[in-house]
Amino acid sequence: MSGYEPGTTGIVVRNIERAEADIIDALEEFGVSTVHEAQGRRGLLSAGLRPIYSGARIAGSAVTILAQPCDNWMLHVAIEQLQPGDVLVMGTITPSNAGYFGDLLATSARAHGCRGLITEGGTRDVRTLTEMGFPVWARSIHAQGTIKESLGSVNIPVNCAGELINPGDVMVADDDGVCVVRRREAAEVLRAARAREAGEAAKRARFEAGELGLDIYGMRAKLAAKGLRYV
Amino acid sequence: MSGYEPGTTGIVVRNIERAEADIIDALEEFGVSTVHEAQGRRGLLSAGLRPIYSGARIAGSAVTILAQPCDNWMLHVAIEQLQPGDVLVMGTITPSNAGYFGDLLATSARAHGCRGLITEGGTRDVRTLTEMGFPVWARSIHAQGTIKESLGSVNIPVNCAGELINPGDVMVADDDGVCVVRRREAAEVLRAARAREAGEAAKRARFEAGELGLDIYGMRAKLAAKGLRYV
Amino acid sequence: MSGYEPGTTGIVVRNIERAEADIIDALEEFGVSTVHEAQGRRGLLSAGLRPIYSGARIAGSAVTILAQPCDNWMLHVAIEQLQPGDVLVMGTITPSNAGYFGDLLATSARAHGCRGLITEGGTRDVRTLTEMGFPVWARSIHAQGTIKESLGSVNIPVNCAGELINPGDVMVADDDGVCVVRRREAAEVLRAARAREAGEAAKRARFEAGELGLDIYGMRAKLAAKGLRYV
Amino acid sequence: MSGYEPGTTGIVVRNIERAEADIIDALEEFGVSTVHEAQGRRGLLSAGLRPIYSGARIAGSAVTILAQPCDNWMLHVAIEQLQPGDVLVMGTITPSNAGYFGDLLATSARAHGCRGLITEGGTRDVRTLTEMGFPVWARSIHAQGTIKESLGSVNIPVNCAGELINPGDVMVADDDGVCVVRRREAAEVLRAARAREAGEAAKRARFEAGELGLDIYGMRAKLAAKGLRYV
Amino acid sequence: MSGYEPGTTGIVVRNIERAEADIIDALEEFGVSTVHEAQGRRGLLSAGLRPIYSGARIAGSAVTILAQPCDNWMLHVAIEQLQPGDVLVMGTITPSNAGYFGDLLATSARAHGCRGLITEGGTRDVRTLTEMGFPVWARSIHAQGTIKESLGSVNIPVNCAGELINPGDVMVADDDGVCVVRRREAAEVLRAARAREAGEAAKRARFEAGELGLDIYGMRAKLAAKGLRYV
Amino acid sequence: MSGYEPGTTGIVVRNIERAEADIIDALEEFGVSTVHEAQGRRGLLSAGLRPIYSGARIAGSAVTILAQPCDNWMLHVAIEQLQPGDVLVMGTITPSNAGYFGDLLATSARAHGCRGLITEGGTRDVRTLTEMGFPVWARSIHAQGTIKESLGSVNIPVNCAGELINPGDVMVADDDGVCVVRRREAAEVLRAARAREAGEAAKRARFEAGELGLDIYGMRAKLAAKGLRYV
Repeated sequence: MSGYEPGTTGIVVRNIERAEADIIDALEEFGVSTVHEAQGRRGLLSAGLRPIYSGARIAGSAVTILAQPCDNWMLHVAIEQLQPGDVLVMGTITPSNAGYFGDLLATSARAHGCRGLITEGGTRDVRTLTEMGFPVWARSIHAQGTIKESLGSVNIPVNCAGELINPGDVMVADDDGVCVVRRREAAEVLRAARAREAGEAAKRARFEAGELGLDIYGMRAKLAAKGLRYV
Repeated sequence: MSGYEPGTTGIVVRNIERAEADIIDALEEFGVSTVHEAQGRRGLLSAGLRPIYSGARIAGSAVTILAQPCDNWMLHVAIEQLQPGDVLVMGTITPSNAGYFGDLLATSARAHGCRGLITEGGTRDVRTLTEMGFPVWARSIHAQGTIKESLGSVNIPVNCAGELINPGDVMVADDDGVCVVRRREAAEVLRAARAREAGEAAKRARFEAGELGLDIYGMRAKLAAKGLRYV
Repeated sequence: MSGYEPGTTGIVVRNIERAEADIIDALEEFGVSTVHEAQGRRGLLSAGLRPIYSGARIAGSAVTILAQPCDNWMLHVAIEQLQPGDVLVMGTITPSNAGYFGDLLATSARAHGCRGLITEGGTRDVRTLTEMGFPVWARSIHAQGTIKESLGSVNIPVNCAGELINPGDVMVADDDGVCVVRRREAAEVLRAARAREAGEAAKRARFEAGELGLDIYGMRAKLAAKGLRYV
Repeated sequence: MSGYEPGTTGIVVRNIERAEADIIDALEEFGVSTVHEAQGRRGLLSAGLRPIYSGARIAGSAVTILAQPCDNWMLHVAIEQLQPGDVLVMGTITPSNAGYFGDLLATSARAHGCRGLITEGGTRDVRTLTEMGFPVWARSIHAQGTIKESLGSVNIPVNCAGELINPGDVMVADDDGVCVVRRREAAEVLRAARAREAGEAAKRARFEAGELGLDIYGMRAKLAAKGLRYV
Repeated sequence: MSGYEPGTTGIVVRNIERAEADIIDALEEFGVSTVHEAQGRRGLLSAGLRPIYSGARIAGSAVTILAQPCDNWMLHVAIEQLQPGDVLVMGTITPSNAGYFGDLLATSARAHGCRGLITEGGTRDVRTLTEMGFPVWARSIHAQGTIKESLGSVNIPVNCAGELINPGDVMVADDDGVCVVRRREAAEVLRAARAREAGEAAKRARFEAGELGLDIYGMRAKLAAKGLRYV
Repeated sequence: MSGYEPGTTGIVVRNIERAEADIIDALEEFGVSTVHEAQGRRGLLSAGLRPIYSGARIAGSAVTILAQPCDNWMLHVAIEQLQPGDVLVMGTITPSNAGYFGDLLATSARAHGCRGLITEGGTRDVRTLTEMGFPVWARSIHAQGTIKESLGSVNIPVNCAGELINPGDVMVADDDGVCVVRRREAAEVLRAARAREAGEAAKRARFEAGELGLDIYGMRAKLAAKGLRYV
């Protein structure tokens, strides 16, 4: 964690550390549910964040933004800090469903290699964003314009949808939601995800063949011991 | 209604009665709104249950599940009780948006003939479920993993999204939501649905031709009697 | 504003003034977010109204409806007042998510030239409405049937999703939500939208080329003056 | 359960069976949380129902009401069916926060011995109801008037806030919410509540003396076995 | 209605017309539910606005405020426009639960004769406001500080909690919520409220004596005609 | 921050550092809104947490709890770690409104010097807690019982209502909500709070005397510069 408290305003941290690109890309393949399980069921953001279109799946390094309510100034500041493969993650000082983000910002962010936006606020221009294939996970869709008056921060730890996100953390996002993986744990989480997926593949075949979870997982004895009665 | 109270835990009822397959399939064709109207506007579950993808339409016999909060153990127990054409219906003891259901359970349920899941809880793996064409009506989409620690029940009456569902009741679900038809009333509801649909088809042609509901339904006199004034 | 108070029941105003058709059609092209900005960020309805399918974009003159809760009688009355290019806008006396609108009413409304429905209530038959390409912006999707017992009004000013809508106002609706433009301001708002869009097109090219908003908008000095520190 | 399906309209059941008065009064003393635990954690209504003032505590036999949305006609019908010690329990066909109940109805209900109202809808006149000491558990407080146009039912099984309530069931309500006890189980639940309370009283003294739950309940070994580490 | 559109910023209207003081005070006595009924069930604000303490009851002339989100600058501007007996009514351009109002502003407003605040936003310092007896009806209680950066307006028509409020309209607020009475209709509404209250007083005595609404209102025949069956 | 990631289970940290008692007690006097402002508007928990009764005001050192959903086992573990003046702060792995806390746990916690509970979950026994004067800030009041099956953690950093809480942080809670002060910043925040309060006391007298904020804060020139027009 950097030395800045969540909620601190007026700071832009320029140099952040990122996880290795191939680890990030491999995490993307596994998706949110597997990664969440692989790291011990930690790191899931609130189910209130939903993708603006179905089928998107990304992973990337967090460039974090603390925004004042209904003020999207810091998004412009953050875009300068992007490197290819990054994901913008925006928390707000107090909740608001205004439309902080739209197609011009998406065009700018993409030009700097951004893979998507994860935000506690709202977004707009969703038709164009969908056509561009620029994914956004947001609390709401709302056209309400925002102002550029007050400072927030960029690349300090930020509370977003119930989780603290550090700059450089790996964000994984898909139709199931959003999960954060700590930068230093990324390699270990990837190993665990691979192990889990290998186990699931074998089980999937058995389930397809009609075998029951009761038998695959050996649950019958434990259920009986708890007192389950078949009548 | 079976002899078990909703909320009873530790029970699996093995033999349940089901409606006739061709009645169920015919109800599927009519869909939720028509069936709901045909049975006197009874049986609609809360609008909070939404399908994970558009265009799904199913009907089937309810295999009911009472789950402990954030515990999906009973889903495995329930799958063993499935017969082809059944639908899983899960209520929970207290609300939670955890991801009780995912692609492995869907694979297992489908292998036993299940047509879909209706649940007060959350689901995950929605991308894979969509690719599989396995429909789920749920309160939320959330990756949060669940445990297997405490007993619920299978095939007892279960409260789900504001309606009591008995095992063997016919569930109808589509883009408009979910409706329950009592097993013994299924044939009668089907007859009423057919009658209603016949009436609507005739009206649809008149509406397409520009005739007004005011005239088709003879509303003008009643409106005038209530005092409606045109100015 | 007509002489009727919002909330007045029992009135149908037959002759309403509308904006010019080519102005309305041009506003449709710009969409909600641009129109909302062009008129000084006024006129946006609540983000709680969502389209039943993605990609719809309409503009049209409001034929307004005040409905009693769970009573859709006035929709039939309103359809008679439609002219080609109109949009139905329904507010309710108290909130309810019942399904006031479905495919028969859509068939009737379309036969009279209606482009879509904007409603504080719920709708049903969304699969058929989607197949018809008849767009609805609604608070919820729910099959619950409604009655035809009590009078509301047609073409009086109506509160809908946080905005007062006058009959003949121009409604613009797309994936970003719904915006109202006052009839007399429509031409002026169109001019402002064109000016804004011209400016945005130029900026879009610069953003695509990698230029930063910090430079395009000359924000660096103001940020520094506010005390932003890069570390 | 009576022979009527939840959702059936147009029926008033005149003779219902009730639990014994002294059992009901004893359950009132224990309150919601204890009764809920004593019957195996069944029967709790949604936490969305809140009392209109603090400190009320009642138990009584349910006289059930199925109301049409925004229509309080059946409340008048139900009051005629009240006996001293009864509680009115109202479910609605579809959600609405209208003000179905107020001081005149409370005056009437009290004159017939009613102890309170439990409702999925809204209520009004809360200041007067508070002065009268007539408690209401409701989803909302709202002044919105209701109509008297459509039939519901009285004393059939009714879905209310997530539970099915049968006429004659014992309702227990206090600051913690509302719990239903099946009529035939009331005596048994009372015994269990007494046993539980006795156990708790003994524990309360030990807790007051500073003993830890870890020791009183002997949790340390189980926690260690699960792997809890003190660092 | 003044000539300004809701949503217009940068305007303070200094001279507004008010209803007569004795009419306002008389409306206060009747309270929200009666006034709402007396004017034909119009004018009720959303049930989401709740008083910060129980038992407050006020009526006064609206001094309206349009506030930028999370910006309470216009409250200071509005206080200068207050006359004794006025009520501050604040709408916001987009929803936010920030704490726009607190004890200093209440002290200032009271010094200028203000009877209370009705707001779509949040408030703070509720303990002190309660001790002062300065009532606030708000969407939320939240300590989040606001800024003073952007212009809204004072004394233009403002959307607040689902109703359009004109400057000088009479606001009535109590434990049941908030109702607006148009300035020019105030005298007429008062007459209707008196008539209604007289009728209710007579009925209250009959209800207390145990007479049934079924008989007082002569409902039995109509219920029978609709098909109500007693079984 | 300790070395443990939020979300880690199975850990109890025994020795935590706390702020000085007199600093904590002084912060309690200032209350949430002042402390929140004094530390630069950081640290406020979600407005969704509400006190179970009005008028409570506490400050104390956080003993943090990560609880499994609907499982209150860790509360017992945490109580052993309490020192006089501490406050229990509980986050949950996924949202649930179950009743994790009640009068027995409050009795135990108080016996160990606890000043109150702040929780993302629900609580019950609120009548007894109110009589005891043991304050709880919670998301909901619900009688639903919880289990004791799965490990969480005690005294690791915990996400609670949108903020990360470290063990030993100072929690301030009153009718306005809950605010966290970092342990090491407590003295500095106290100084800032004193400075702020001194300024406010002077202003309060001027406001009482009828002076306007427009003059006290010298806002008129800035408003004019922004273009505010009086008409």
